[in-house]
Amino acid sequence: MKAYDDLMRFQRQTEALGQVAGRLGWDQETMMPRGAAEQRGEETAAMEAVLHARRTDPRIGDWLARIDAADLDEVQRAQIRHIRRAFERTSKVPAKLAEEIARVTSVAQGIWAQARADEDVAAFLPTLSRVVDLRRQEAAALAGEDGDLYDALLDDYEPGATGASLEAMFSELRPALVSLRERLLGAEYQPGKLDAEFSEIGQLRLSADLARRFGYDFNTGRIDKAVHPFSSGSGRDVRITTRTSPRDPFNCFYSTIHEVGHACYEQSIDPEFGLTPLGRGVSMGVHESQSRIYENQLGRSRAFCGFLYRRMAEEFGDFGVRDAEAFYGAVNRVNSGYIRTEADEVHYNLHVLLRFDLERDLIAGRLETADLEEAWNTRFHKDFGVAVDKPSNGCLQDVHWSVGLFGYFPTYSLGNVYAGCLHEAMHEAVPGVEAELARGETTLATNWLAENVQRGGGLHEPRETIRRATVSEPGVAPLLRYLEAKFTDLYRL
Amino acid sequence: MKAYDDLMRFQRQTEALGQVAGRLGWDQETMMPRGAAEQRGEETAAMEAVLHARRTDPRIGDWLARIDAADLDEVQRAQIRHIRRAFERTSKVPAKLAEEIARVTSVAQGIWAQARADEDVAAFLPTLSRVVDLRRQEAAALAGEDGDLYDALLDDYEPGATGASLEAMFSELRPALVSLRERLLGAEYQPGKLDAEFSEIGQLRLSADLARRFGYDFNTGRIDKAVHPFSSGSGRDVRITTRTSPRDPFNCFYSTIHEVGHACYEQSIDPEFGLTPLGRGVSMGVHESQSRIYENQLGRSRAFCGFLYRRMAEEFGDFGVRDAEAFYGAVNRVNSGYIRTEADEVHYNLHVLLRFDLERDLIAGRLETADLEEAWNTRFHKDFGVAVDKPSNGCLQDVHWSVGLFGYFPTYSLGNVYAGCLHEAMHEAVPGVEAELARGETTLATNWLAENVQRGGGLHEPRETIRRATVSEPGVAPLLRYLEAKFTDLYRL
Repeated sequence: MKAYDDLMRFQRQTEALGQVAGRLGWDQETMMPRGAAEQRGEETAAMEAVLHARRTDPRIGDWLARIDAADLDEVQRAQIRHIRRAFERTSKVPAKLAEEIARVTSVAQGIWAQARADEDVAAFLPTLSRVVDLRRQEAAALAGEDGDLYDALLDDYEPGATGASLEAMFSELRPALVSLRERLLGAEYQPGKLDAEFSEIGQLRLSADLARRFGYDFNTGRIDKAVHPFSSGSGRDVRITTRTSPRDPFNCFYSTIHEVGHACYEQSIDPEFGLTPLGRGVSMGVHESQSRIYENQLGRSRAFCGFLYRRMAEEFGDFGVRDAEAFYGAVNRVNSGYIRTEADEVHYNLHVLLRFDLERDLIAGRLETADLEEAWNTRFHKDFGVAVDKPSNGCLQDVHWSVGLFGYFPTYSLGNVYAGCLHEAMHEAVPGVEAELARGETTLATNWLAENVQRGGGLHEPRETIRRATVSEPGVAPLLRYLEAKFTDLYRL
Repeated sequence: MKAYDDLMRFQRQTEALGQVAGRLGWDQETMMPRGAAEQRGEETAAMEAVLHARRTDPRIGDWLARIDAADLDEVQRAQIRHIRRAFERTSKVPAKLAEEIARVTSVAQGIWAQARADEDVAAFLPTLSRVVDLRRQEAAALAGEDGDLYDALLDDYEPGATGASLEAMFSELRPALVSLRERLLGAEYQPGKLDAEFSEIGQLRLSADLARRFGYDFNTGRIDKAVHPFSSGSGRDVRITTRTSPRDPFNCFYSTIHEVGHACYEQSIDPEFGLTPLGRGVSMGVHESQSRIYENQLGRSRAFCGFLYRRMAEEFGDFGVRDAEAFYGAVNRVNSGYIRTEADEVHYNLHVLLRFDLERDLIAGRLETADLEEAWNTRFHKDFGVAVDKPSNGCLQDVHWSVGLFGYFPTYSLGNVYAGCLHEAMHEAVPGVEAELARGETTLATNWLAENVQRGGGLHEPRETIRRATVSEPGVAPLLRYLEAKFTDLYRL
């Protein structure tokens, strides 16, 4: 067991350094003085160099070779599975290529941001082509002779998932969502919108209250403001950010609840797994299932909206919405916007599916970057019934591809699919959830999720994590049942 | 020049990692959730392990051996001087001993804090003895056959200074200060104290205003609250903290100005030296000279107090002090308290000199830790005319010795001596300083300090840095002239 112990000691230190690097990122988005940006670049690069050297340290290979799986218990085997997978991935990619990817993507984000500001797709294309090319090379190194390029990339975010399995799942989702959105937008009854100003201090106070109500532990976390909401850190230091907008308090509240979902996952993992590979959320898809079920199935439920309506009235006085049902409609209003991050529950996955298909084609070589804009606009028109008016509302809207994130998008929809499965299973297992939500409490729901999904961290593979919680094979049917029931009811169809 | 370039590239990354470790410390005192303490311990230890490995990396020795000083310009020679000194120091201390010191001091602080809370010197003595013994072993490794143990430790904080040279300096200071304090405390006129409550928000707002007025650059810094005020970071990210106390706003204001002095030193260093050994303040003594001249010679001057009196009236309304002269007296009131950190300008150095003499005796083996309390109390009574009433007001009051900081205390008084020299030289060079201070501006003074002391960073040795700024040999006379003139005038003697 000496090799195992040595390896875990080394890994533990690497995990601790990873937390430090993560906290540096948090600081950059929340606390860092503006003028420190350039110096911070060097500090971040130095941390990355240290982490990269540790992750590719040949001693890891030696330790792994000397460990006999027969000597290990279930937890230890899971630890080794994670370490081995990460080490094999980094070992397969030539150092030169890894450096070139880091170099190119570090400048690509700035070029993308400028192109988006200028509404100039052509200015971004050479960079995008280079990023696609490099990621294809990396995928080829990872996939080996017979492997699929896209699957190799996807494996970084969602171990065990394949492009083909996701495609099968999403091909059921898409027509049902298109049909649903058409019926809703054509319905006679259309919910109203908020039309008032909401103080920043009130939004932040209510936001903190919501975080507590959803189980966020302030003893091992904190909330700050940032341009883009995010959750950061694992174990005993999991911080979230939110933002405010004077006329759109839902942006603040549901960003907070979403990030609380991510953060509670990290905070609820068995403390025994702290600073080990099992001590982090197991995949992007499972992570997103938690943030989305907190935000949508719980936070946007009729029961919780009833509570939130009264709570907002307490905080802001009369804000011009006549009753709880009108409020529920305002929270869940469906409309076909261009922007993924602003999309409602019905449209959100259509945004993701579009990106999934296009990025798979880019990586497979079936789509040239030169044809990306046209492909995007054609598909958007087909699924949303609207023509894209400008690139910043179209193929230039997301940062992901500029920084090389191919294979990441589908985990958003996979998370929604998993959230649908979990929601249905939870309702069968814990009957009192809705009654509690109506009182602004979430303990039954969040405890069930903590116990059945979150606590295990990386102990089981992602899909297996969901399967164990729901005691059935994950699929899109529960999500579709949920959306169909919720929205046809809300739209009085 | 390849060896020089390789060494500097390596060093630059080490400096960047040092900044990250420093920022982690800042986070711990300002932002970290309570429940993260234990995990943070592991994160900090991991960073320290990385830094220690880099600082003792044998490649540094190889690079240094291959560099020919004749190929280097002045700046490059200074860089190498710093790197060589640091490398030789770490190389001389056996790794086992360094680890043992780290291990013992990491728990000693907690034992000291408990002993202080319990007023139980005996509970701390075994730990203190162990720390003294380990630091003596370290000093012996550093000093070699003929070297002085205390000098070897002092060299870490104040390169070039020796216990004997400081003793010569301080032996002039002590009787003059004892005489001055006796005359002041016996004077007929005694200034009054503040006696009002001051809102926290007002203190923090005025504190930020003072920081700006003393030249603190918020574009590369920020102010937060912390239990103990400190300054942290170098280059383009230099943060300070302050604290508030409802009935003692001077604690807040002068803590802020003090830390601004440290921070402005770091912010004003030639940006060319960023993330190199020259890009940090050159020694503790020179650093303290900046914080003390900002705080005392400038901030507690009659001219600036006149401005601050009006500014406080603006912020807090009538706070019960009848005029600017009474206010100046309240700011500079002399009284013999037990606590170093709360001492006035006259008593402060007497606190330090006491510690300097005792710690030199401990390291030399002339004083046993068992006799420390008696030695402290005897000396305190002699210099302050008051008997120590309890250990937390006596030999248990400071954290320094528990964490192994021997040789650090005298740099506080050396800083005051240097501040005296700089203040006199500045007044000769820039006549308009007082008139500007009376308007609440400090540009003439702080620009002179930036140009003559701060900008060079580590380019010159500490004493040489002061010598170049004052164009004379540093000594205690200017400080004594300043204190004598200021306080006999204030006390109408």
